[in-house]
Amino acid sequence: MPTHFGPASGPRQMPDGMPADPASNPRRLSVAARFLTDAARLEAHLPEGFTLSGEPVVTVEFHYLTGIDWLAGRGYTMVQVSWPASFAGREDKASGRFLAVIWENLADPVITGRDEIGHPKLYADIPPPRMWDGAHLCSAGWLGFRFLDIEVSGLRDISPDAPPPDDILMLKYVPRTGAWGEADLYQVTLTPGKDPDRTVEHRQTGTGRVQFHPAAWADLPTMDHVVNALAGLPVYEPRGGTVVHSRGGKSHRDQRILR
Amino acid sequence: MPTHFGPASGPRQMPDGMPADPASNPRRLSVAARFLTDAARLEAHLPEGFTLSGEPVVTVEFHYLTGIDWLAGRGYTMVQVSWPASFAGREDKASGRFLAVIWENLADPVITGRDEIGHPKLYADIPPPRMWDGAHLCSAGWLGFRFLDIEVSGLRDISPDAPPPDDILMLKYVPRTGAWGEADLYQVTLTPGKDPDRTVEHRQTGTGRVQFHPAAWADLPTMDHVVNALAGLPVYEPRGGTVVHSRGGKSHRDQRILR
Amino acid sequence: MPTHFGPASGPRQMPDGMPADPASNPRRLSVAARFLTDAARLEAHLPEGFTLSGEPVVTVEFHYLTGIDWLAGRGYTMVQVSWPASFAGREDKASGRFLAVIWENLADPVITGRDEIGHPKLYADIPPPRMWDGAHLCSAGWLGFRFLDIEVSGLRDISPDAPPPDDILMLKYVPRTGAWGEADLYQVTLTPGKDPDRTVEHRQTGTGRVQFHPAAWADLPTMDHVVNALAGLPVYEPRGGTVVHSRGGKSHRDQRILR
Amino acid sequence: MPTHFGPASGPRQMPDGMPADPASNPRRLSVAARFLTDAARLEAHLPEGFTLSGEPVVTVEFHYLTGIDWLAGRGYTMVQVSWPASFAGREDKASGRFLAVIWENLADPVITGRDEIGHPKLYADIPPPRMWDGAHLCSAGWLGFRFLDIEVSGLRDISPDAPPPDDILMLKYVPRTGAWGEADLYQVTLTPGKDPDRTVEHRQTGTGRVQFHPAAWADLPTMDHVVNALAGLPVYEPRGGTVVHSRGGKSHRDQRILR
Repeated sequence: MPTHFGPASGPRQMPDGMPADPASNPRRLSVAARFLTDAARLEAHLPEGFTLSGEPVVTVEFHYLTGIDWLAGRGYTMVQVSWPASFAGREDKASGRFLAVIWENLADPVITGRDEIGHPKLYADIPPPRMWDGAHLCSAGWLGFRFLDIEVSGLRDISPDAPPPDDILMLKYVPRTGAWGEADLYQVTLTPGKDPDRTVEHRQTGTGRVQFHPAAWADLPTMDHVVNALAGLPVYEPRGGTVVHSRGGKSHRDQRILR
Repeated sequence: MPTHFGPASGPRQMPDGMPADPASNPRRLSVAARFLTDAARLEAHLPEGFTLSGEPVVTVEFHYLTGIDWLAGRGYTMVQVSWPASFAGREDKASGRFLAVIWENLADPVITGRDEIGHPKLYADIPPPRMWDGAHLCSAGWLGFRFLDIEVSGLRDISPDAPPPDDILMLKYVPRTGAWGEADLYQVTLTPGKDPDRTVEHRQTGTGRVQFHPAAWADLPTMDHVVNALAGLPVYEPRGGTVVHSRGGKSHRDQRILR
Repeated sequence: MPTHFGPASGPRQMPDGMPADPASNPRRLSVAARFLTDAARLEAHLPEGFTLSGEPVVTVEFHYLTGIDWLAGRGYTMVQVSWPASFAGREDKASGRFLAVIWENLADPVITGRDEIGHPKLYADIPPPRMWDGAHLCSAGWLGFRFLDIEVSGLRDISPDAPPPDDILMLKYVPRTGAWGEADLYQVTLTPGKDPDRTVEHRQTGTGRVQFHPAAWADLPTMDHVVNALAGLPVYEPRGGTVVHSRGGKSHRDQRILR
Repeated sequence: MPTHFGPASGPRQMPDGMPADPASNPRRLSVAARFLTDAARLEAHLPEGFTLSGEPVVTVEFHYLTGIDWLAGRGYTMVQVSWPASFAGREDKASGRFLAVIWENLADPVITGRDEIGHPKLYADIPPPRMWDGAHLCSAGWLGFRFLDIEVSGLRDISPDAPPPDDILMLKYVPRTGAWGEADLYQVTLTPGKDPDRTVEHRQTGTGRVQFHPAAWADLPTMDHVVNALAGLPVYEPRGGTVVHSRGGKSHRDQRILR
């Protein structure tokens, strides 16, 4: 919305005649770090119908995107927090990674991603990555309160080839207007992991560090509960980090609802 | 969403124990300008079920909010574009102002307003108002492209008392994931005009000027169609402007769905 | 500079024919807090020729300016840190407040203030003040690191009249190009405290709290030494705070060099 | 200034023990476009002592810097406008490019570059480059007014090797406090073109387009005269564009004053 002005263009609907080349664009720098945490604590943050599957390892990824065609060549940054989970619905079963929260530093894909895909997206201020003394340092904040830092260092090159990524599971939720506390939409949606349009050009591995900073309500009055839930997960063991340069990517038109 | 971390606080759900005083907060500076345009052109931008009611006068309002309790005292700015319309549903009939689009310069109320209320909110960069040489100058842009300017000048004081504002009508629309082009939610919602928590402290009237700047797709790739629809409305006659200082305001818990 | 394009307009040179009214503009909200600290520690941060005069009380003031004529009605924010000092030069003697550092959130007055006045100005990100639960909360940061918070609360009205403010002393310093570590200009300059163009409209007093946050070099690589010097001053005792609304202000054309 | 807190770290003075590697850092993406203009109009914008040398071709360069060591791995962007000129002083003669103005989107190097080097630096908002449909699109603005666009397209690779760049000439100017309109410092300074620390990794050439947008005083109240002088230069003929990726760069400690 607004819809009465006609369809908006966006990642899944480029205007006619505009050049789009999903195999070349966008360019993407991905910096990720992982840590082992407590299974019970993690499971407490899964919605109904989900169970933890495999080791309780949390992945935090920063994706710095540039040259995005549906933004006429502009870019933005996406932070994703996920962990392994399975879903059993009335009809469908699926395993993969549960996408717990996404932060982005541009409101437009936050809006379309929430509405069209069911992405659990929130807004954050995310500066460009710092690259210093052999490390990649990534951070995110909101109106002056920095709530997340990750650092990946000690990098060495590995093969760009990798096993296909897991399917991604998430929860699309829209509250019911006037019936406060009730849902109008409550759907589990799935993104197939396979992305035929994405090519990895360079992959490095190293050590990773993740730090969520606990927030008072007044620091992050719209999302202290999210950040504090993640900040409250114990870091039992770091599980490494990666830096990946890639190009291209699909438009998520293969997103589907599970029942 | 994300909802699995528990309820988010926001305009309609302050955390327990936090001070909220809807009769005092927020503080609001409202600058509005109006113009007469073409009835047929305006009616073309109404959704199904709506008809233009009364003169085809477009109102553009900037609301600069400060001291908002649910943001722990921070503020943001809201731009609203509306015109008079009636709605006839299967069960309900209503008249008031149709809220065609809202822009805000903070993503958090964009998200909650869309989801909880059905507000047709988009993001824009909106600087503080310029106050210069007796005029109030307000503008909005997106990543370096300024798409809207209004100016209100020649101000003189009038009584703060005014007839109660019209009810506000809008369309809540959520697309269906995986069924591109179809809707999962399509609801007309209504905000009662009456706001018992708001007190006008100072009201001025003067001349107003509204200018939407036409955009190429590459200037505003996610909302050129909205801005160009408004920029394409002929300005037959300016219909004045107002500057209002007020305090307090309701939380929109009285928002309801029309059928 | 650049100067070869002709004179720049600015606070001390409005373009011909542009309206300027220093008795009405800008509007100013000033929030200040004070604390007693250690005399020896404070004196260590005074330049040669200066001595501490009176109690070692540090004042931190936030000035939120709006409707500035030389910015065509825009605004910006200024943070000033000062303490009482005397200067004895070869010819001149003066007492007042030593202006140790200024931060501003707009580069243009940083540039002209440094060059024309000798103001020790640096850039900071300074959000609008938070006004919440009876308190004014002001903060400043740099690229995501918040280095200063002040809070003034428990406010009660006092008379807008006040004794004339002290003269302000500062050091204008320009390094010599190519002779690294040497100065090309090293001048003590003075701003007379009296400002005939400024009218205080409302004055409140209350309790004040100042907190500078210590920084690693990587947090504030261009000014960690400034912030850490101030963060290292012990707070022996808070000395209250004020909130002042005023309008008008002089252009500092009365600034002069002491010898 | 402030200097009484001790020396600031910066491009020419890294703190002890901090890693600095001028042959590797920063990374730099340079996008430049050139146009032939009117000799007399260009000469009118040269300071006393300078004459135009060679063809009246204006170069506008955007340098997007990342991984800057003295910013602990952060980056910023620099825009430079220059044309060929010779200087004849009382003692020194020099030829090269006259650096008419620099805009940067971070205040810290604006301050140190002006003070230490004599760089004619101003602040501008400069978004990341748009890369779209084979073109690089670069723009600069100030508080919502976009004053400069360049576009380089039709790119083909050429040898990274190139003749050494010209020496750069500029004017360091500091006004005299209290003697309004007079100068306290007025020095021509020179940067040797040779940069032993910089390595070009990839060089492309193509067609270039430069557009300065004329500004009303209220659009750019501190620099309308600069932008309008450049916007007033006729574009007789485009003279191509380049896109260069490089790494490393000297600290300008070889900057010197000409007499």
